[in-house]
Amino acid sequence: MSYNPVELIVKKRNKSALNKSEIDFIVENYINGNLPDYQMSSILMSIFFNGMEKEEIVNLTAAYINSGSHIKFPDEFNTIDKHSTGGVGDKVSIILAPVMAACGAYVPMISGRGLGHTGGTLDKLEAIPGFKTAFSENDFKKMVTDSGLAIIAQSEKLVPADKKIYALRDVTGTVESLPLITASIMSKKIAEGAKNLVIDLKVGSGAFMKNMTDAENLAKSLISTGNAFGQNVKAVFTSMTSPIGFMIGNALEIIECIEYLKGNKIKDLEEITNALLIEMLTMSGLAKSNQEALAKINKVINDGSALNKFIEMLENQGGNPKVVDDYSLFGSTKYKMPILSNKEGFISFINSQDIGYAMIQIDAGRKILTSQLNYNTGCEFFKKVGQKIEMNETIGYLYSDSQEIGNQVINRILDSIHIQNNECESEKLIIKVI
Amino acid sequence: MSYNPVELIVKKRNKSALNKSEIDFIVENYINGNLPDYQMSSILMSIFFNGMEKEEIVNLTAAYINSGSHIKFPDEFNTIDKHSTGGVGDKVSIILAPVMAACGAYVPMISGRGLGHTGGTLDKLEAIPGFKTAFSENDFKKMVTDSGLAIIAQSEKLVPADKKIYALRDVTGTVESLPLITASIMSKKIAEGAKNLVIDLKVGSGAFMKNMTDAENLAKSLISTGNAFGQNVKAVFTSMTSPIGFMIGNALEIIECIEYLKGNKIKDLEEITNALLIEMLTMSGLAKSNQEALAKINKVINDGSALNKFIEMLENQGGNPKVVDDYSLFGSTKYKMPILSNKEGFISFINSQDIGYAMIQIDAGRKILTSQLNYNTGCEFFKKVGQKIEMNETIGYLYSDSQEIGNQVINRILDSIHIQNNECESEKLIIKVI
Repeated sequence: MSYNPVELIVKKRNKSALNKSEIDFIVENYINGNLPDYQMSSILMSIFFNGMEKEEIVNLTAAYINSGSHIKFPDEFNTIDKHSTGGVGDKVSIILAPVMAACGAYVPMISGRGLGHTGGTLDKLEAIPGFKTAFSENDFKKMVTDSGLAIIAQSEKLVPADKKIYALRDVTGTVESLPLITASIMSKKIAEGAKNLVIDLKVGSGAFMKNMTDAENLAKSLISTGNAFGQNVKAVFTSMTSPIGFMIGNALEIIECIEYLKGNKIKDLEEITNALLIEMLTMSGLAKSNQEALAKINKVINDGSALNKFIEMLENQGGNPKVVDDYSLFGSTKYKMPILSNKEGFISFINSQDIGYAMIQIDAGRKILTSQLNYNTGCEFFKKVGQKIEMNETIGYLYSDSQEIGNQVINRILDSIHIQNNECESEKLIIKVI
Repeated sequence: MSYNPVELIVKKRNKSALNKSEIDFIVENYINGNLPDYQMSSILMSIFFNGMEKEEIVNLTAAYINSGSHIKFPDEFNTIDKHSTGGVGDKVSIILAPVMAACGAYVPMISGRGLGHTGGTLDKLEAIPGFKTAFSENDFKKMVTDSGLAIIAQSEKLVPADKKIYALRDVTGTVESLPLITASIMSKKIAEGAKNLVIDLKVGSGAFMKNMTDAENLAKSLISTGNAFGQNVKAVFTSMTSPIGFMIGNALEIIECIEYLKGNKIKDLEEITNALLIEMLTMSGLAKSNQEALAKINKVINDGSALNKFIEMLENQGGNPKVVDDYSLFGSTKYKMPILSNKEGFISFINSQDIGYAMIQIDAGRKILTSQLNYNTGCEFFKKVGQKIEMNETIGYLYSDSQEIGNQVINRILDSIHIQNNECESEKLIIKVI
């Protein structure tokens, strides 16, 4: 079918739903260059304002998927993936994928880079000397089939529509749109071939979703879209106020993950990781109960098989496996500066979005698209909401190549910590599961 | 000032007002090519959805005007113009400009072409052999100064921002936006140098504004914007259901205007023209009362001085003045086909938008931007809402070069006439003045 693009813009602008054939026309013609950027941006802004019905979102996601190739694993493979909406210190994927693989699942993970104040799984993994994230679909399929896991970047062939439309959304003020976010996330998660998906929906000051209403609407949209393609989807809502774990920064977070897989777990990181793993193991049938799931998780960590899967992934993807035993192979920063508390009281709130932005100052994140990362910079920060801090107490360390910028960042971190005189509750990390 | 365009898009998208410096940045950078079409179309769609405050509209209009040159006449000149929002058979400007010039006013009229189902003053005037509408600003100024009138097309130098943004709006579904319509109309009417402006705000089936609420909102926006630039603006709301006068079609309408200036006036056309002229004469101080205005209008028509101004305009702009006495100079169509009524009763409604579109079938209007007009085609249609028609009565004539298409158009015209058995009121042409 052929349409007049202006009539389709006006239709969406006037709050009517677009049908499958109209949505296919828009996406196909945008990808082949017949529909110009300026008409696409009008359509995107109309979608921003008027939203989309469930069926439209499914059709949009289908059009995205059909713009490229679609990976299929054998039916008997227990394929499962996790997606996080993004947080500060969120290194959960790097622990969870080896654990799932060690438990017998297949984890075909297409991951992303840092966005805004949040870090990205690919950036963290690339801190490992030699580690590669660009692979052909065949290589990806082979790694997942042989080892049970691979974590790679979106290739040119997988969902090219999302790649082109995302770039346009980024420069036309149309990123924060529920139907567009849904099609962007779900098209990749469906095209990569995972039968089951768990979404870590982060809510709070350090997340993109600041409140539960927005988070719940997004979760419902992601779940119903996945289901329309026969994918099982669960959403775990987790609080994102304190940074997750103690480490923020690319190599620092990988070290924290290796320590975790060696059995040295940090409490909040374990609570979130286990909540997600339990859902993944039970929904994929690898465990019949939460207790059985927990027992499996502890077993593969205690017997070293999860760490071995991590090492296997490094070997597959070109990373130096010796880093597991020798952290000096990551390199280091010139300075490790103590962060001394300048106040006394109970931590009531941490503005971890601000901490995330501060990390960009020391090149742990990107200022612009083409910025070079410094994989070794970052911070250690031991304290969580609800804990007491004393004046002049060492509450963490900053890793920086410049003392001057380091001091600026330390001040910004200190400013992001809010205290009160009275005791306050610790953060409830797992809000709910749907 | 320099801004991040995405931040400005998001600001408008999130319902905040843009300030003068931000609006200047957008318009300047769009015109010089630094702000790409796809970002401009996002801004336009955000304006479509969220509207603009009075001050924003004034700033947008100012930015449009400042994109080009600004014509200024001596202070002592009684400069005045009229703008019509567009109707079917609307040839009022072509009568009104010579009448005003004969009464001592200066009419610097930048006019437009046919749009949608409505005709355009420039297209009609170009039906006169030799008549030109493209002039430099200096020539325009000289003609107005010497003869009291000139009707020309928008030049490349006058309000180029409107030209470029209008073209983008046309292909991005952002035409029907009150702030954008206001800036587009008023920027030209202010830049052309008229101190006073009367707007003929057409309302009804044959107009772009179908109801009074939309028309009143547009009028208020036009008036307050003109006032902000020191221009006196009045709006006359006129009904647009029956086509105005008897003739529709380019040369046919010019002939009707010449007849009018010779004293052979058609009632509804006279009622609308006089309502507008009375406002123009009183607001510009050329008449102290409506009676005095009416006396002046009748005088310049009866003594031939209005017709002489029309002839003077033709001489200035290259048109053959002999057409005034010899209509055969316009040429003619192969066929003059009677339109015979196929029903009997009182006319309750005329869908003159449909009649306007039917005229495009015989090339009296454009199918696409580059269509060649046939200046001689059109129709005569004698009947108005409230009048009785008999079965088989000749209610008009169709002028066409093809009998086959002519018959199709006649059927479309007949379909556009709705009748009822009971007597009904004639149309109240002048609704109100603000």
